[in-house]
Amino acid sequence: MLEKYNVRTDLALEEKERFESDQVEIPGVILEEEYEDELEIQITKVKIETENGAKSMGKPVGVYLTIEAPNMAMSDEDYHREISEKLARKIGEIIHLQEKEICSVLVVGLGNRQVTPDALGPYVVDNLRVTRHIMKEYGKYAMEMEENGIVSAIVPGVMGQTGMETLEIIKGIVSETKPDMVIAIDALAARNSKRLNRTIQIADTGIHPGSGVGNHRSGLTKETLGIPVIGIGVPTVVDAATIVNDTMENLISALETSEVLKGVGNVLRSYNNSEKYELIKELISPHLNGMFVTPKNEDELVKQISYTLSESLNMLFTEMKTNN
Amino acid sequence: MLEKYNVRTDLALEEKERFESDQVEIPGVILEEEYEDELEIQITKVKIETENGAKSMGKPVGVYLTIEAPNMAMSDEDYHREISEKLARKIGEIIHLQEKEICSVLVVGLGNRQVTPDALGPYVVDNLRVTRHIMKEYGKYAMEMEENGIVSAIVPGVMGQTGMETLEIIKGIVSETKPDMVIAIDALAARNSKRLNRTIQIADTGIHPGSGVGNHRSGLTKETLGIPVIGIGVPTVVDAATIVNDTMENLISALETSEVLKGVGNVLRSYNNSEKYELIKELISPHLNGMFVTPKNEDELVKQISYTLSESLNMLFTEMKTNN
Amino acid sequence: MLEKYNVRTDLALEEKERFESDQVEIPGVILEEEYEDELEIQITKVKIETENGAKSMGKPVGVYLTIEAPNMAMSDEDYHREISEKLARKIGEIIHLQEKEICSVLVVGLGNRQVTPDALGPYVVDNLRVTRHIMKEYGKYAMEMEENGIVSAIVPGVMGQTGMETLEIIKGIVSETKPDMVIAIDALAARNSKRLNRTIQIADTGIHPGSGVGNHRSGLTKETLGIPVIGIGVPTVVDAATIVNDTMENLISALETSEVLKGVGNVLRSYNNSEKYELIKELISPHLNGMFVTPKNEDELVKQISYTLSESLNMLFTEMKTNN
Amino acid sequence: MLEKYNVRTDLALEEKERFESDQVEIPGVILEEEYEDELEIQITKVKIETENGAKSMGKPVGVYLTIEAPNMAMSDEDYHREISEKLARKIGEIIHLQEKEICSVLVVGLGNRQVTPDALGPYVVDNLRVTRHIMKEYGKYAMEMEENGIVSAIVPGVMGQTGMETLEIIKGIVSETKPDMVIAIDALAARNSKRLNRTIQIADTGIHPGSGVGNHRSGLTKETLGIPVIGIGVPTVVDAATIVNDTMENLISALETSEVLKGVGNVLRSYNNSEKYELIKELISPHLNGMFVTPKNEDELVKQISYTLSESLNMLFTEMKTNN
Repeated sequence: MLEKYNVRTDLALEEKERFESDQVEIPGVILEEEYEDELEIQITKVKIETENGAKSMGKPVGVYLTIEAPNMAMSDEDYHREISEKLARKIGEIIHLQEKEICSVLVVGLGNRQVTPDALGPYVVDNLRVTRHIMKEYGKYAMEMEENGIVSAIVPGVMGQTGMETLEIIKGIVSETKPDMVIAIDALAARNSKRLNRTIQIADTGIHPGSGVGNHRSGLTKETLGIPVIGIGVPTVVDAATIVNDTMENLISALETSEVLKGVGNVLRSYNNSEKYELIKELISPHLNGMFVTPKNEDELVKQISYTLSESLNMLFTEMKTNN
Repeated sequence: MLEKYNVRTDLALEEKERFESDQVEIPGVILEEEYEDELEIQITKVKIETENGAKSMGKPVGVYLTIEAPNMAMSDEDYHREISEKLARKIGEIIHLQEKEICSVLVVGLGNRQVTPDALGPYVVDNLRVTRHIMKEYGKYAMEMEENGIVSAIVPGVMGQTGMETLEIIKGIVSETKPDMVIAIDALAARNSKRLNRTIQIADTGIHPGSGVGNHRSGLTKETLGIPVIGIGVPTVVDAATIVNDTMENLISALETSEVLKGVGNVLRSYNNSEKYELIKELISPHLNGMFVTPKNEDELVKQISYTLSESLNMLFTEMKTNN
Repeated sequence: MLEKYNVRTDLALEEKERFESDQVEIPGVILEEEYEDELEIQITKVKIETENGAKSMGKPVGVYLTIEAPNMAMSDEDYHREISEKLARKIGEIIHLQEKEICSVLVVGLGNRQVTPDALGPYVVDNLRVTRHIMKEYGKYAMEMEENGIVSAIVPGVMGQTGMETLEIIKGIVSETKPDMVIAIDALAARNSKRLNRTIQIADTGIHPGSGVGNHRSGLTKETLGIPVIGIGVPTVVDAATIVNDTMENLISALETSEVLKGVGNVLRSYNNSEKYELIKELISPHLNGMFVTPKNEDELVKQISYTLSESLNMLFTEMKTNN
Repeated sequence: MLEKYNVRTDLALEEKERFESDQVEIPGVILEEEYEDELEIQITKVKIETENGAKSMGKPVGVYLTIEAPNMAMSDEDYHREISEKLARKIGEIIHLQEKEICSVLVVGLGNRQVTPDALGPYVVDNLRVTRHIMKEYGKYAMEMEENGIVSAIVPGVMGQTGMETLEIIKGIVSETKPDMVIAIDALAARNSKRLNRTIQIADTGIHPGSGVGNHRSGLTKETLGIPVIGIGVPTVVDAATIVNDTMENLISALETSEVLKGVGNVLRSYNNSEKYELIKELISPHLNGMFVTPKNEDELVKQISYTLSESLNMLFTEMKTNN
């Protein structure tokens, strides 16, 4: 399968799509789909339940919820409010899957504020209502806030700016401020350029090494931080190598369907995997590593969706009760 | 030739390279090359002298000077100062080609400050020493400045932000403030990803429709503004469609050289142009339009080179005499 | 009167307040007040109708509408939407005072984006929906937009960045793009620190020399631009010299009311104007010129109110009909 | 003494100046002055050696080095390089006072990037060369870097953005990444507006509660962090209350020297402290709390001096040997 070479996606949904047809059941992986006509929202839940499933999917055991809304990239304020509400409920559901009671969260805005498609995390934190310092100062007597979650937030920067792994920074802050949970916001790489800036993935597995636009070297997970970590991501780039791969896939299809080129298709199809690998290897320019593909108006798109995300978190924690 | 389909470059140098070998002389186009060992700078001058040459090159008659320095992307301060000096001299040479005396310039920082690889122009203006208001207020009595050029600058923004063509904005400002010349700084699209952020093109033909990361709809030229316009550009992106095209070229080469695949190469080579065109058309995904490819650390690279550029302009105009 | 020395305000309302009591009628100046209980909004209209009135007020003939809302500095989204609606109606009223039909406006975001309290204008433009380029491209066939105004916008920068007077830039753009009206947004200096970031002034007289945080050297007015100019401003700073003056006023009051200090008050009150002037002159430190006083959380405040302002303009022009 | 009421300065130098004349020796406080003609730099070292001295000065025991250079606010590049070198040596001297060997430092950029005069710390970190991640990855084999210090950096944000005390964040990061020392960069409040943006204070006592433009609630010190903390600060604001106080001081002087007003002076001087306190209390407007005074071109000034500071740190650590 061509997809093995250099194809990268941070979306569990797209990993699932690799398996040619939905009829094929992957052992240990459960798929639930839901469609909301009114808002034109497609919600897909991928549950990876066993280690075998995790192996097939190349992602750890956990729940991955994807919300796709084609109009998310448009600037209709009322529509965004509805999306934010929907999103708040869905994030709330994932939080409630945790065994322990969640009263306080640390929101981590991953990524590089200076690089447009990687600025999602910092932008979300910019519009977040943090409450921890107020709660600590006024405590229970701040009656109005009684029902609120305790929210703190940090934009740690990227390794080229800090000289530190994000994990080191967050681990230190977690051990000092002791939140019940981390919510990590990150810009992701998708496989399909149509999904950029209109898809939100919520996962209870945290952030994993090699994922995100900035390619994290260490993960932020329950294993590394000792508390539940929810990862919320929006794909904002496609890896440049993916484009090459797409072209190859298109080529194969073209060869198979076009009358003129059918002969070539037959030749290609007859090659074995190592022959195909040799072909791909030669086609991918080494200069494409470390490069990504992003829309020209990414500045507006990332601003728009980051606002939707911070609103949903503000909604969620302003009314969040301790869960029971 | 495959290059006809969707290949885009703003560099005259790369247009010239399209012609398979340098031995082939293009009538009306003169090429001069110069190499500086010490700084490892390659300087290429492409002079398009006739309308025929312009037609072959797809660029207007004029002088295009390209400075390539592989180390430009590195942060050695002394090296950058030397590059800035070199650059100042080269820009000065192009300015001196103008028939009229140049005492005052308006520097235009094209592009979108919010989109990292398109922020070159705004960043250059950020570090520019403007003098026009001081000259107007203190005039000849500001003795120290006697030898200086009169520099004004504007960051007009992009059409999605202003609702206006950049040409409209600049035309209005030029007719009101009457500079002798416009210098327009812009981020460009290159064909070859190796050239990104380490190549500077200086052209006395201004900025043309369809060029730049933001794809200008109208040009800034002597014809449209009534005064000489020098365009200074740095390639910071590769068009996503170019990547697809590159893959195809690589495929053809691979097919021709690889023992295993020679058969396919023979088939492909036997196709005529319209058959090939059909193939390409099918391979290019419509979603790639409006997308570009850029390095992950573009924020550092564009900051670095924009500083080099603004320094060279500051050097040039602080000592610029009226030319004779 | 102490107020003569170095007291500065850009609010007509505060000029009016200088006249010790509201009972005193200033010939040629009409005052109308309105209070909305629900939103706690105070609306004051100062109409300067004669040249004599203009002389007394130190501001040109015209209508100055001030909206004060103590909660404007708070981040209640619903409240801000209501303020935006109110504001949209009020700006609409001022626009309808113009004799000619207004179909297209150029919004000018004055000020320096890099200086927090001066960034109001640029921030408002950042969130504005510009439509001119869409209308020009799709014209009447863009049915949905039929009722919309034609909006363009520019952030010209300040003279230290451009070397040009803002007037020169705007004059050029106006003569090239021919809008029916200019709306200029600017950060203002107030006299009373309580008004900062919770007061909006709308004036049909444009922007005048010496006003604004950045102290414009030339005005943007109907006289200089040839089309109506509406100035919308929010006070974000108090001049440092004003603080000194306030202290002096407080001192006088203190001396008059305090039992202990009554003696000093009597002495001071017995001085004539030139004696008082000598006193003030000595008290004001020359280092205070070019300095201003601003709240420590001005970043949040200016972000908040600029968003309210851009929303109101978006509301206004999305439903703006040609006036009749 | 009037200075008791609401006068605030973060500069040890200015605390020293409170004591009317230099002849007066404060027990436990040593003053050393040095002047460099060529660069017009005034260097003042205040050593607080005893707890009594600390009490008199209102600052903890330690060394406070102040570098004043009137031209620091100007943009002469060569001059700034010389200042940076000077500064690097002086910071180096303070570092060498530490008992333990310093191989690795964590630079903390305190303050709020969104508020111009508070952005000093973040700006310094923006231009810093961090090396820790490179050293960790390539270790001793990165020969070129053998002599370099291990530098990491963080911009923690302010409490209103994070909901956490800066101390909590830094404590966590320190315990996780184990640097030998913290260097904390902060914008300060000065007493004298002439010192703004042209004075740098280096103190081996760290950052103390209540200091800085943002008024830190908890300090970053050897006591709280367990490792040496060097505080480097530049005054960028004057507290608004200080201006009022200055006016009062000027008033007293005016009253004492002016022939006309001598009578009032006599009256005022005859008051006892509680009477004076009552006067001051009434004069200071409550609205001035939470406000500061800053120059109108603070954006350029803070950009300039932050660059000088980051250069000096880059110089220092690129050649820093382990101290012996």
